[in-house]
Amino acid sequence: MTVIGLPTHDRLTDAEVFAAHQGGQLSVVGTLPIQDAHSLSVAYTPGVARVSRAIARDPALGPHYTWASRLVAIVTNGTAVLGLGNVGPAAALPVMEGKAALFQRFAGLNALPVVLDAPHIDDIVEVLLRLRPSFGAVCLEDIAAPDCFELEERLKEVLDCPVMHDDQHGTAVTVLAGLLGARTVLDRPLEGSRVTVLGAGAAGIATAHLLLEAGINDVTVLDSLGILFTGRSGLTQAKAALAARTNPRGLRGGPAEALRDADVLIGLSSSTVPESLIASMGTRATVFALSNPDPEIQPEVAARHVAVVGTGGSDHPNQIINTLASPGIFRGALGAGARFITTGMKLAAARAIADVAKDKLTVDYVVPHSLDPRVTPAVTEAVARAVSDT
Amino acid sequence: MTVIGLPTHDRLTDAEVFAAHQGGQLSVVGTLPIQDAHSLSVAYTPGVARVSRAIARDPALGPHYTWASRLVAIVTNGTAVLGLGNVGPAAALPVMEGKAALFQRFAGLNALPVVLDAPHIDDIVEVLLRLRPSFGAVCLEDIAAPDCFELEERLKEVLDCPVMHDDQHGTAVTVLAGLLGARTVLDRPLEGSRVTVLGAGAAGIATAHLLLEAGINDVTVLDSLGILFTGRSGLTQAKAALAARTNPRGLRGGPAEALRDADVLIGLSSSTVPESLIASMGTRATVFALSNPDPEIQPEVAARHVAVVGTGGSDHPNQIINTLASPGIFRGALGAGARFITTGMKLAAARAIADVAKDKLTVDYVVPHSLDPRVTPAVTEAVARAVSDT
Repeated sequence: MTVIGLPTHDRLTDAEVFAAHQGGQLSVVGTLPIQDAHSLSVAYTPGVARVSRAIARDPALGPHYTWASRLVAIVTNGTAVLGLGNVGPAAALPVMEGKAALFQRFAGLNALPVVLDAPHIDDIVEVLLRLRPSFGAVCLEDIAAPDCFELEERLKEVLDCPVMHDDQHGTAVTVLAGLLGARTVLDRPLEGSRVTVLGAGAAGIATAHLLLEAGINDVTVLDSLGILFTGRSGLTQAKAALAARTNPRGLRGGPAEALRDADVLIGLSSSTVPESLIASMGTRATVFALSNPDPEIQPEVAARHVAVVGTGGSDHPNQIINTLASPGIFRGALGAGARFITTGMKLAAARAIADVAKDKLTVDYVVPHSLDPRVTPAVTEAVARAVSDT
Repeated sequence: MTVIGLPTHDRLTDAEVFAAHQGGQLSVVGTLPIQDAHSLSVAYTPGVARVSRAIARDPALGPHYTWASRLVAIVTNGTAVLGLGNVGPAAALPVMEGKAALFQRFAGLNALPVVLDAPHIDDIVEVLLRLRPSFGAVCLEDIAAPDCFELEERLKEVLDCPVMHDDQHGTAVTVLAGLLGARTVLDRPLEGSRVTVLGAGAAGIATAHLLLEAGINDVTVLDSLGILFTGRSGLTQAKAALAARTNPRGLRGGPAEALRDADVLIGLSSSTVPESLIASMGTRATVFALSNPDPEIQPEVAARHVAVVGTGGSDHPNQIINTLASPGIFRGALGAGARFITTGMKLAAARAIADVAKDKLTVDYVVPHSLDPRVTPAVTEAVARAVSDT
C-alpha cells in the first residue's frame, strides 16, 4: 500500500488552536423567534404554561414538546482524557465541547458537555439519576477503565434511556467497519481471521467482544503484562471475562507470540510495536495502529510488511475514528425511541459504515473519510432499523 | 391612567403554542467551522488536547478556553412552576427552555435547562457541586418557598460562582425599577412611600427586603393569614426575619387594614383584591398586580382609583417582568468575574432599568418595554460597575 502523508498536524500551531478555543466552542440558541410581545408570549409566558400543564397531565407528551428527547449528555469525570490521563473535569471540558460540536455537525443532534467533579462512579450514577429529565441519552467519554465498565452497566440498569461509552463501543464499531472493508478488499473472509488486539483498556476490551460477536473466532488480547488467558493471576473482572472468550489456541507470552502469523493487529494501547513483529505477521495482513497521538508503529514502517494500514489520525489514509459511528448510533437510537444500544445495533452500524466505502474500496480506503456526509445518515438508518427489528 | 388592551393572549391558540414547542425550543451549536481535516483537527483531536493539557497545568486558563464561563445553568426541581405549582422537573422543562432562550436573546448568554428529579434541596446542592466545572453561574427557577431560601443560601456558600434565585431577586429588582419610575412620574419620593406587599412567597419576601434596602421604611407584608408582625404564631424563619424589619406602624389584620391609605400595592400572591380595598388606598397610588396569569385585580378596575397600574402580562402597559433584570445581572456578574450577586448589584440593576425609561416616563410607561434592546446592556454595565466598586 502507499502512504500519503497529509501533514495536517504539522501545520497546527498553538496560536491557531488557542485562538479557536477562546471562550469555548459551543453556544445554546433558541429556535423560536422572539421579536414582539406575541412571539414572546408563545416562547415564554403565558404560552409555555400550557405546554407544561399538558406534560404534567400526560408525561408521555414530554418527549414531543421538549428538547430532552433530542439531547445527548456527553458525560465525563476526566479520569482518562484522550492520551492525557486523569486531568480532571475542568481540563476535560474542551474535549467534551469538541465532541458535542461533532454530534451537531455530523448528526444534527444536540449534545451537552456534563463534566463532573466525581472521581467515584457511585456519584456519577447519583447525579445522572437526578439529571435524567434533562436529557434523552448518555454518551460516556474518557472515563478510566475498569470503572467505565461498571459505570456503563449500572447506568444501563437505572436510566430508562440509551447509554453508551463511546471510547468502548464507538471505537469497536469503527474498528469492525474498517476490518470489514479490509477483509473485503483483500478478498479474505472476516470470520477466519486471526486477530490480535493490543491493549485491554476500555477500547480494547469492547473491540474484542464486538469482533467475537461479528463471528471472528480467533481473537487474542494483550495487556501490558502480555496475552490474556484464563487463570492468569491478577485479572480484573472485565479481563477475566474476556480471557474466557478469547485466545482459542491457548497462547502464552507477549506481542511476539501473539503477532506471529496473525492476520490483523488492532493497536489500542499506549505502547509501541517493533518492526520485526509486524514483519512476523501473516501474509497480506492488516494493521490498525490506533494509539493517539502516536500510533503503535509508524504507518510508513508497517506498510513495508502488511497490506492495509490504518491509524487514528487524519494525516494518513484509513482513519479509524469513532465519530464515524457514535453520532449516527445516538441519532438512530433516539429517533427510534430505543431503551438500549444493543449488540445488534452496533453490528448494524459497523456494516453501514463499511457499506458507504464498499464501491470504491482500495487498501488505502477501507473506511469512509471522517467527514463523508453519507456516513451518519447511513448509520442512523441502520441503527433505527435494528431497533425496530428487535 | 389609560389602559390599552392589547389582546395578545386572546390571540394565542393552543395550536400555535404546541406547534411552536414541537421538539423543544433550544439547540446547541458549534461555533467553529468543521469542514475539512484541518478544521477538524483544530476543533477536536489532536488540537483540543493542547487546550486540555494547558488547563490541566494551569486551572486558571479554564474560563478562557471553555464555554463554562459564559454558561448559566437554569436549575429547577419543578416544585413551583409559574402558576402551576409542583408539576415536577419534566413538566418544568419547557419553561426552563424558554428562560434559556430569553437569556440568549436578551444577553447573548448561553443558558441551559437543568431539571432535577430532586424534591429535597440536599440533593440539589449535591448535584450542583458535582456539576460545578460544567457552568459559570446558577439561576434558580421555580423552586417552592421556603426551600428556595435555604437552597440559595447554601449554594452561595458552597459554589464559587454567582447564584441567584430569579423568582426572588429578578422580580424584586424589576419591581423596584418600576417603583422608581412610578414615584418619579408622580413626583413623590420613594423613601416616604407606604408600601403593601401582598404575598410572602419567594418573590414577596425578596421584594420586601430589596425595597427596605432601597430606603423605603414603611413596608407591610401579608401572607394568606394576614399582616406579618413579630410574634405572630407559626411564622417560618424567613417570615419571622421579614416581620422584624417591616410593619413599622404595628398594623394587625388583613388586606383591608394594610391597604388603607397605602401608596403602593405590590401583588405577588395568587389571591384577589376587591375593588373597594383599592379605592381605600391613598391618593395617586400605584398598584402592581403581578400574579400570573390572573392579576390580583383587573388593571381596568384598579385604574379607576389609582394613578399607575402594572401587571406581569404583556397585554397591558407597565409589564413588570423579571427578564428585564436577570439576563443583564448574570451577564454583568459573569463578565466582571463576580463571586456573589450582592444587594449593591441588585440596586444598581434596578436603577439602570429605571434610567432607560427616564426620558419618556408617563403613568403608562414606568418601566421599559420587555423587549427594549437598551435594557440588558444598561443592566450589564451597571452590575459590572457595582462589582468593581465593591
